[in-house]
Amino acid sequence: MAEKADDIFKEFKEHSISEFFNKNRQMLGYSSKVRALTTVVHEYVTNSLDALEEAQALPSITVRLDRIDEAKYRVIVKDNGPGIPKGFVGKALATVLAGTKFHRNMQQRGQQGIGAAGCTLFAQATTGKPVHVTSSTGDKAYECDVAIDTLHNKPILSNVADIDTAKVPQGLSVRGEFGGVKYDSSDHSVFEYLKRTAIANPHAEITFIDPDGGEHTFMRAVDALPERPKIAKLHPLGLSVSDLFEMAHSSQSGRVTSFLVDTFARFSQDKANEVKDTLKDIDFAKGPKELTWNECERMVATFKSMRWISPDATHIVPIGEERIEAALQNILSPESLHVIERKPKVFSGGFPFVVEAAIAYGGGSGRKVEGGYTGVIMRFANRVPLLFDSGSCAITEAAKSVDWRRYGMDLDSQAVSVFVNVSSVYIPYSGVGKESIAQEDDIIDEIKLALMDAARGVQRFISNKEHTKEYEGKYKTVMRYTSQLSQDLASITGRSKEGIEERLEKLVAKQYKKEDKDEGGGSDGKDNG
Amino acid sequence: MAEKADDIFKEFKEHSISEFFNKNRQMLGYSSKVRALTTVVHEYVTNSLDALEEAQALPSITVRLDRIDEAKYRVIVKDNGPGIPKGFVGKALATVLAGTKFHRNMQQRGQQGIGAAGCTLFAQATTGKPVHVTSSTGDKAYECDVAIDTLHNKPILSNVADIDTAKVPQGLSVRGEFGGVKYDSSDHSVFEYLKRTAIANPHAEITFIDPDGGEHTFMRAVDALPERPKIAKLHPLGLSVSDLFEMAHSSQSGRVTSFLVDTFARFSQDKANEVKDTLKDIDFAKGPKELTWNECERMVATFKSMRWISPDATHIVPIGEERIEAALQNILSPESLHVIERKPKVFSGGFPFVVEAAIAYGGGSGRKVEGGYTGVIMRFANRVPLLFDSGSCAITEAAKSVDWRRYGMDLDSQAVSVFVNVSSVYIPYSGVGKESIAQEDDIIDEIKLALMDAARGVQRFISNKEHTKEYEGKYKTVMRYTSQLSQDLASITGRSKEGIEERLEKLVAKQYKKEDKDEGGGSDGKDNG
Repeated sequence: MAEKADDIFKEFKEHSISEFFNKNRQMLGYSSKVRALTTVVHEYVTNSLDALEEAQALPSITVRLDRIDEAKYRVIVKDNGPGIPKGFVGKALATVLAGTKFHRNMQQRGQQGIGAAGCTLFAQATTGKPVHVTSSTGDKAYECDVAIDTLHNKPILSNVADIDTAKVPQGLSVRGEFGGVKYDSSDHSVFEYLKRTAIANPHAEITFIDPDGGEHTFMRAVDALPERPKIAKLHPLGLSVSDLFEMAHSSQSGRVTSFLVDTFARFSQDKANEVKDTLKDIDFAKGPKELTWNECERMVATFKSMRWISPDATHIVPIGEERIEAALQNILSPESLHVIERKPKVFSGGFPFVVEAAIAYGGGSGRKVEGGYTGVIMRFANRVPLLFDSGSCAITEAAKSVDWRRYGMDLDSQAVSVFVNVSSVYIPYSGVGKESIAQEDDIIDEIKLALMDAARGVQRFISNKEHTKEYEGKYKTVMRYTSQLSQDLASITGRSKEGIEERLEKLVAKQYKKEDKDEGGGSDGKDNG
Repeated sequence: MAEKADDIFKEFKEHSISEFFNKNRQMLGYSSKVRALTTVVHEYVTNSLDALEEAQALPSITVRLDRIDEAKYRVIVKDNGPGIPKGFVGKALATVLAGTKFHRNMQQRGQQGIGAAGCTLFAQATTGKPVHVTSSTGDKAYECDVAIDTLHNKPILSNVADIDTAKVPQGLSVRGEFGGVKYDSSDHSVFEYLKRTAIANPHAEITFIDPDGGEHTFMRAVDALPERPKIAKLHPLGLSVSDLFEMAHSSQSGRVTSFLVDTFARFSQDKANEVKDTLKDIDFAKGPKELTWNECERMVATFKSMRWISPDATHIVPIGEERIEAALQNILSPESLHVIERKPKVFSGGFPFVVEAAIAYGGGSGRKVEGGYTGVIMRFANRVPLLFDSGSCAITEAAKSVDWRRYGMDLDSQAVSVFVNVSSVYIPYSGVGKESIAQEDDIIDEIKLALMDAARGVQRFISNKEHTKEYEGKYKTVMRYTSQLSQDLASITGRSKEGIEERLEKLVAKQYKKEDKDEGGGSDGKDNG
């Protein structure tokens, strides 16, 4: 052969995850100019909201964009959160795949430890500048610049300086300069992203200062903190071999049996015995640290062949019907609004999730276009707005499969906003950029049911409205004749026309009111029409 | 605050890229059952074709699928390539982000060192089984099982055994068992994937044994090896800071200046002086190994502000018009076929690419559906078929923007196959699964031009065909009267009807032939109609 295997493999190398994403930035959402800018804001705001949820405080977040030149912007995101201890700032903002969130089985906006480090990569690749950080944890404050040594996926800190805590408010502030970006007023831009973030996080106050100096504040719609998600036990059907291996090796249990029963959801002693009976050659009395990779593999395969009670979903915290309603009223003031929270369901055997859906009709719903309106689908995953890659998303797929005309609606030409939020400890995103939910059948079906349910509510409002219109038409027609009739009756009876007309009008009004009630009108509590 | 920063960050951890992709398998293409199976075949076949290209040999690849149960299949892929030396098999098949391809600036199908390791992850996660490998480099042969320790992204080899080279053919054979997969006959399945691979690689012979034992062979359409892509010098506008830093630190040059001139494309001594004049505080006489990260950052920023000659594109090897024609004739036997190879263009300043497009009309083109046909868009990147995520792909976007009716075509209802192959050292994929090309404006424009060019060719054929049809209609109409006319003429002149009819028919035929030529018919060399 022209080139032998040994020659070919001389060039074999490993590379770091930083290098990989530096070379493939578009996979993180840094593709088009508008999207890239929204992605930066998205990553920082998501981290702020998560940090404030952990610290159990009401978020106040300010996002500011300064235009440096046509395709270069300065982004500043400031929060009132817990801050980052100095020893962790490099890992948190300048190391890909490092974070507090990945190993925790808990519902959070971020999951992967890629977002903020991705922003740092993007800043240094497009403007060659590090990201400036100011942090106060309340009792200690500092500022510094962070960059990434992409070859080794290690942080590079510079200009580190302590600050008097009296001089800075508690929280985190990041400031970066980014090239190849653009701000506009489209539906994929920062304003819309923050508006939707406010809808799904009505406990947050978000201020946006746009590149032209315009200030927009999305006020807090509810003052109570959302319930804090609890850490869940993994369900045996959602376990990978590496999960089991790692958890076994960091377990404090004395025996494999007690490790299984104590660590995993729905793992009774009976279930442990069932596993033991299937895998007779594994010693279940030994310490879990002694389990080999191969033994873990065989255990996971055994779990998959057994019957289990569905996973518990009490650790999932959806937004809540009242909060969604308050937020959508606050921001859209629709004529009719119907919100549905479905019961928890499970996908891929082991992962519970909850779907919330709302349909807002009229008022500020939908989007104004030339010649009228068009419908808008607002997608959310764990309260984070998804603005891109809608074509590949389970929410879009579900919304497309609903026959909207059956409910008197048309998403192409009406002022309708469709809201869907999927909450789960594990959202199966279809890409690293986390802008769409993979099209798992279980998830699509559940979203479709929620949308149909909400659509029925709006349908009642629409048919009432149509009925009222029809009724008003009839009423007007009859009224048109009362004047002539009163005249005629007056000349026959010799009474005054005015008196007869007044009594006739009352009679007609009364009759029509009755008819309206008989035909089953009645307004739904949530309609404002 | 309820939870202080220090408490929150106690849980801070780093995790491995294997763990990340194990948890987010859908990002690698392991989402739906059919797609997951196609992805496995795609990864192995891609690696085989790349290895054979490096070894400069004509590929013969066999893919075999065995159904183990409804959602579990055994996949065997065998090639006649160079094999993998024993010392590298763990890195090559069971380490994420390791490979020979990432650091080389060279056009190849694979780039990232994720594919084959992703298959191993997927096998062990869904069936708990390692992947079995048999390799012969010609003078040494062995077999072994490979798995991944996902916690550390390290390979686990077992059952390693040497084999007598006389007993196995040279090449690589991998065998894995995968769960959560499905084979069907849809356009997203293995058969279609291999058919399209054969179209874009007419120098390869590919045999497919389907799960029901059916054997399909895509014969070699050309016997010559494709030209081998050369390693390209990076263009200064396509350089990231990490590229420059790494290359500087592994350079043998004595000075920064000579390092720049020797290493990068279009970097003349004049250009080096221009950089020196801009960055006066950097010492260009020192060794490149002494360049700091910050200095590299500033140099990359300076490169971006300078004017450069476009990058050289001679290291890009497209498929070639003749080869595409041979392949499409071989597999589709269309009535009309037009192939276009465009000149190299550049996207994002520093990355050259070449677009090839073809439109096949009639014959086996398009897809049969109930009541007729529908058009098919076949997307390729560096000869690799892209079957998924079409909605987000630059090729789809470009094809949608062509006004097909102008060319007499309708992709919704006609037997048309549209073929597009984008070749580049660096293809900007929109996801890790590499199933769609990011929508860079430069790339979309170029594809659109290629498609319009090819469409014009087919349009000529279609209007000729319509003209012929019209002509035949007229001819038949005239002929219908010759019999009556001959009869009448015979009775007037007293000659035989048969003689007159024969002469009349010849006259008409001659006249129509002439008229056809006058109206500019003439067949295009590539049309078979």
